[in-house]
Amino acid sequence: MASSVPSTPLLKDELDIVIPTIRNLDFLEMWRPYFQPYHLIIVQDGDPSRTIKVPDGFDYELYNRNDINRILGPKASCISFKDSACRCFGYMVSKKKYIFTIDDDCFVAKDPSGKEINALAQHIKNLLSPSTPFFFNTLYDPYREGTDFVRGYPFSLREGVPTAVSHGLWLNIPDYDAPTQLVKPMERNTRYVDAVLTIPKGTLFPMCGMNLAFDRELIGPAMYFGLMGDGQPIGRYDDMWAGWCTKVICDHLGLGVKTGLPYIWHSKASNPFVNLKKEYNGIFWQEELIPFFQSATLTKDCTNVQKCYIELSKQVKAKLGKIDPYFNKLSEAMVTWIEAWDELNPSSASAEAANGPAKAK
Amino acid sequence: MASSVPSTPLLKDELDIVIPTIRNLDFLEMWRPYFQPYHLIIVQDGDPSRTIKVPDGFDYELYNRNDINRILGPKASCISFKDSACRCFGYMVSKKKYIFTIDDDCFVAKDPSGKEINALAQHIKNLLSPSTPFFFNTLYDPYREGTDFVRGYPFSLREGVPTAVSHGLWLNIPDYDAPTQLVKPMERNTRYVDAVLTIPKGTLFPMCGMNLAFDRELIGPAMYFGLMGDGQPIGRYDDMWAGWCTKVICDHLGLGVKTGLPYIWHSKASNPFVNLKKEYNGIFWQEELIPFFQSATLTKDCTNVQKCYIELSKQVKAKLGKIDPYFNKLSEAMVTWIEAWDELNPSSASAEAANGPAKAK
Repeated sequence: MASSVPSTPLLKDELDIVIPTIRNLDFLEMWRPYFQPYHLIIVQDGDPSRTIKVPDGFDYELYNRNDINRILGPKASCISFKDSACRCFGYMVSKKKYIFTIDDDCFVAKDPSGKEINALAQHIKNLLSPSTPFFFNTLYDPYREGTDFVRGYPFSLREGVPTAVSHGLWLNIPDYDAPTQLVKPMERNTRYVDAVLTIPKGTLFPMCGMNLAFDRELIGPAMYFGLMGDGQPIGRYDDMWAGWCTKVICDHLGLGVKTGLPYIWHSKASNPFVNLKKEYNGIFWQEELIPFFQSATLTKDCTNVQKCYIELSKQVKAKLGKIDPYFNKLSEAMVTWIEAWDELNPSSASAEAANGPAKAK
Repeated sequence: MASSVPSTPLLKDELDIVIPTIRNLDFLEMWRPYFQPYHLIIVQDGDPSRTIKVPDGFDYELYNRNDINRILGPKASCISFKDSACRCFGYMVSKKKYIFTIDDDCFVAKDPSGKEINALAQHIKNLLSPSTPFFFNTLYDPYREGTDFVRGYPFSLREGVPTAVSHGLWLNIPDYDAPTQLVKPMERNTRYVDAVLTIPKGTLFPMCGMNLAFDRELIGPAMYFGLMGDGQPIGRYDDMWAGWCTKVICDHLGLGVKTGLPYIWHSKASNPFVNLKKEYNGIFWQEELIPFFQSATLTKDCTNVQKCYIELSKQVKAKLGKIDPYFNKLSEAMVTWIEAWDELNPSSASAEAANGPAKAK
């Protein structure tokens, strides 16, 4: 079996791995050959007095709730507690250009030939090659070796746009909601689809935070995982919320979002009864959230991610506040998040997006 | 090796196979187990005095240019000559609900396990299951066995919409334009991507006519392959034109377009120098055609495919006529095509689309 570990790890000093957890990180043993060269940011959820064990040899910083409160002060209210949404604190304190985030019940998957999949290397490949959001290429990623743009693909669009997000998938336990888990408890994802594709402009998708990478400089401030868990009427919509906001902003700024490879092995289905309790408001609300995000438009003044996000927060209050007071609170937390982001990342606060807003279609 | 030929061929009496050709149809031998139960409509291009040999045992009707002229009279002008665009005559004379069209240099491909792929059976599966154009499902076709909608997919959208088009792909020779063929003469597509997906609403794609199936009742009148070849300033854009018109109309009427499986084995690259001569106007014009189709909107009165198509023909004249007089001629041919379609398919002329226009987003 050929090793899938590259001799020189790509972007070694430009990428942080963010892991939210409530337990000892034994799962890192399996990832050691792939993750050890990188810096880890561990966001400890739940009881801060508990000690989380990290296997020897990893370079990491760890933040618990006390740290978050100390660093953010009153602004810590925007970071969720008792929910993996807390991971976005790690995005904020990182000083690197790229983030890879993974759940602690995700392991190394194998491709159909039996070879271990270096998920991080594939995410990096996805992020470093352009996206094609304006027109669909039927042979999928045109930049991949052995493929290209097909006949009928406009030449003016073949340069693509910068990729902001790489969304990876899961073998074994699929990322189903509680009702689907309840109906199909034994369903496992065994199908390896050998493709990466750009989610077209104007199309929303369900972004899962289990196996996700992004360019912090391009889109970081939009990767807010919302108010979930402790004291909130909703859970398990943290990554979805981030995905919808991110996609709207990427579309506006002319940035790309990819999905497909790499796969990780998702080992353990969460409890569908517990999930149902967390999700039921979300299942109901998403019927209004999707049309909201589908029709959300940002003005020309929204020239960087922060400005886009603040504008979106206003629309959330104006248009979703009537669904439930929760959305007023969320809208305010979105603003707090940006304030906290800019405080910790002063150089990004005034930055304009490289491209500016995408040309209106 | 398990046989991939189903014991009872699906839709045997509801589907025609349309083949444009200038040569003897020896390629059918390889397809015999799959195609023999079906009726073939062969559209003979070029010299009508030439005899095309069809292998024994196939049930077919064959039309040459004399037949087309006789059947359509002056309206025959809308059917291209010396170009595979002539195949759309077959769609018009069919009396079946479904069409599968394939080129005569396409053979049976094998999946990664070595099993022959029954392309027609996969197309039928695609057409008989719904599409999901309003939101992207990251595990691809949610109706496929072993998969479903993922967390965050709105429940109100899980019924999907009727599928109008199934676009299949090609192993071996990819469908590249002349410049790409010239630059990468040896590139072969060896990657089998085990997925079918819906092209999202509002996204255009390059539809290739080599391996294509559609629901004639839902979308037939939009499947006009334009004016190409003999006497025209353009070739090899017949399927692209049909694809762009079809996608705009499917989006308006709330119908689905799928791409992905099945693969066929495309045996022979066409001559890139000849192709360049056919394509160069198209390569230039498509830069304006894509924005035109991306911004094309149809009014609420466009309640069936014919009305949509006539409306689109007016927009072609109004907005593309200035690029080249060819588009005025094409616009008129689009009207002639619909007149001829309605003449041969009187019951469809007055039909309203089952769904009516899709709700505005």
